Amino acid sequence: MISIAIMGHGVVGSGVAQVLLQNAAAISHKAGDDIRVKRILDLREFPDSPLADCFTKCFEDIEEDDEIRIVVETMGGLNPAYDFVKRCLQSGKSVVTSNKELVAAKGDELLALARSRNLNFLFEASVGGGIPILRPLDQCLAANEVTEVAGILNGTTNFMLTKMIGEGLSYDDALALAQANGYAERDPSADVDGADACRKICILASLAFGKHVLPEQVQTEGIRNITADDVACAAACGGAVKLIGRSRKLSDGRLHVMVAPMVVEKNNLLSDVNDVFNAIMVRGNAIGDVVFYGRGAGKLPTASAVVADVIDEVKHLAARKYLFWESGYPTYVAAADDEAYRFMVRLDAMDLAAAKAALPDAAQLVAAGVPKGQAVLRTAFMTVTDLKNRLAAVGVEPLSCLRIFTLSQD
Amino acid sequence: MISIAIMGHGVVGSGVAQVLLQNAAAISHKAGDDIRVKRILDLREFPDSPLADCFTKCFEDIEEDDEIRIVVETMGGLNPAYDFVKRCLQSGKSVVTSNKELVAAKGDELLALARSRNLNFLFEASVGGGIPILRPLDQCLAANEVTEVAGILNGTTNFMLTKMIGEGLSYDDALALAQANGYAERDPSADVDGADACRKICILASLAFGKHVLPEQVQTEGIRNITADDVACAAACGGAVKLIGRSRKLSDGRLHVMVAPMVVEKNNLLSDVNDVFNAIMVRGNAIGDVVFYGRGAGKLPTASAVVADVIDEVKHLAARKYLFWESGYPTYVAAADDEAYRFMVRLDAMDLAAAKAALPDAAQLVAAGVPKGQAVLRTAFMTVTDLKNRLAAVGVEPLSCLRIFTLSQD
Repeated sequence: MISIAIMGHGVVGSGVAQVLLQNAAAISHKAGDDIRVKRILDLREFPDSPLADCFTKCFEDIEEDDEIRIVVETMGGLNPAYDFVKRCLQSGKSVVTSNKELVAAKGDELLALARSRNLNFLFEASVGGGIPILRPLDQCLAANEVTEVAGILNGTTNFMLTKMIGEGLSYDDALALAQANGYAERDPSADVDGADACRKICILASLAFGKHVLPEQVQTEGIRNITADDVACAAACGGAVKLIGRSRKLSDGRLHVMVAPMVVEKNNLLSDVNDVFNAIMVRGNAIGDVVFYGRGAGKLPTASAVVADVIDEVKHLAARKYLFWESGYPTYVAAADDEAYRFMVRLDAMDLAAAKAALPDAAQLVAAGVPKGQAVLRTAFMTVTDLKNRLAAVGVEPLSCLRIFTLSQD
Repeated sequence: MISIAIMGHGVVGSGVAQVLLQNAAAISHKAGDDIRVKRILDLREFPDSPLADCFTKCFEDIEEDDEIRIVVETMGGLNPAYDFVKRCLQSGKSVVTSNKELVAAKGDELLALARSRNLNFLFEASVGGGIPILRPLDQCLAANEVTEVAGILNGTTNFMLTKMIGEGLSYDDALALAQANGYAERDPSADVDGADACRKICILASLAFGKHVLPEQVQTEGIRNITADDVACAAACGGAVKLIGRSRKLSDGRLHVMVAPMVVEKNNLLSDVNDVFNAIMVRGNAIGDVVFYGRGAGKLPTASAVVADVIDEVKHLAARKYLFWESGYPTYVAAADDEAYRFMVRLDAMDLAAAKAALPDAAQLVAAGVPKGQAVLRTAFMTVTDLKNRLAAVGVEPLSCLRIFTLSQD
């Protein structure tokens, strides 16, 4: 019998307790031992919970209990989660967390601390909700040199963009619908401004390429400025606007990492990832492209990923897992604007001749669905600075410039 | 330094040697030890190989060498692979195989033998080539009760069907093109008659539901009888014909398992899986639907999955992994025809009135693209026996009846 504690009894934490109780027999079988929830840390009270006796408001009840071998952290936010997780590891307990903010900010430090104590620190649920991605990335792709990781990492914005594409909603109406469905918070900024996707691409890039990428190193653009016209033009050109987190290894060992709305063309599987679903594409030198797809959020999918980590830690109480990355350094992430992309440039039709002269390699996309009085160009590969300079030189201010999502060797 | 042997130096085996040499530094880092190929078993000679000194024609050179701790089997076929793998395990060596025929036929016995000796027997590459699927299914979904596994498991037939759909090729022309591209053997029966997909769904179902499913228990239909008209009608109705392997748990504890060409409707992600790509969908009670997508075959993708297993075995030489299933029993798989499906029924237009009378719940699909003089009905859920009886009762012989792929709770 292994005793564990759960810190936080919100959506994910209560889901973890529920999955552990509901699937207890199968979980014991998989783990090779029974798992007992001994303590749940929450400031609120839950007298009707089947685990009502386990609740405590005092972190020390967990920290000082040597019987508790594994602690699940589902509080979210950086503080006090960071302090609590550190103290759990320092007192000899392995930790599982679903907290992407914590892992993106402090993953290297917590992994090093866990390693120094021969403990485990696992966080499968922090990226892609229930989709198994970190463990496959670490283990199954061990024989590959991973060259690129990219994906649709935020379900809320993908839901909004799907509604804008499929039903012609405006950004504001799509946001209101997401809020009405419980997919977006009243303050939606962590989703729509890209911070959530940024944390996830930081974790993926850190694991894939071995050094920590911090959120503040990543140029992050959200979807607030995406209009119904952008979405319509992308569709007219056979693509879909998606919020993409992307990371690839540069030839000098540094990384390109960015989060931005991009046009995904129809020949790419990611263009068909709709609603709240997430999909993560991994490119390896031996394996080619692999895609992992599923619900990126939700109580039970996320809880099931947490419980899978708990099972793994029970099985590895004596021998730690190898998941690890080192600290990064200030210039590890290159300036995002130095990466060349193709662009979809939306223009006032009056500016078309000048823009074509400035961008002689660009193709004009003529298709039903481009709003009246507008025109769309698809450029060659260039940096955003080059694009803007060339247009400025001929006095053209584009209505919008969206990167076209292309994997590196395409 | 860990010594290993590779049995078979064909496409996959030579790929394994290549990946081990090319990515040696990264692999040693992941495995925590250097990996040396000490022996390669093949009846042919490869004097120009960088590993030329390792070759042997004598299995005993591997079996009797106590320094060899791990053996990779990539010979394919049941014999002598079965005998060799058994003897490797009996002499205390862990085994990695890419041989789906071997695992589908003898997985339970070899897993039990490995467990009894505290050894590992891993076979990630046997399903989905380089796509990580067995390990995520076993570990990451540990907290889920898996209710269904289904997918596009054979790249050759998917390539052919893609060409029939997209370019209007006939079955024979699509087969010739697959052969010209090296995707299909001169004798294509293992692919086109479904045996390859059958072995893979057996392995997936055995792992997902815990008891061995044998290929001979699985009703298997290939794509030999699929015509350009079938494909055109499916497309006209907003779907794509795909060769599907499907397994779901029945309420009495038995399984429905079958391989058959099915119509995948456009709202299902599997309908967009084209060319030689594979995709496997797993449905769990907590996680919902998760899809794994990638190249299902090919030298390097498959080799990278084999090498990942080798790395895992090096890391677990002392403590075996838990991947396991029990033996099944003769009635474990229910009669496939008892499972209700919706059907796409293609008819001579002259039979339409009679067929509609026999199938009052069926909807006629009127769409551009249905061949002249033909009609298409989409039935309610029913068994194939019920469908055929009802049509026979009114004297209608349909041109074809294809199951429509639907997950259990849809």
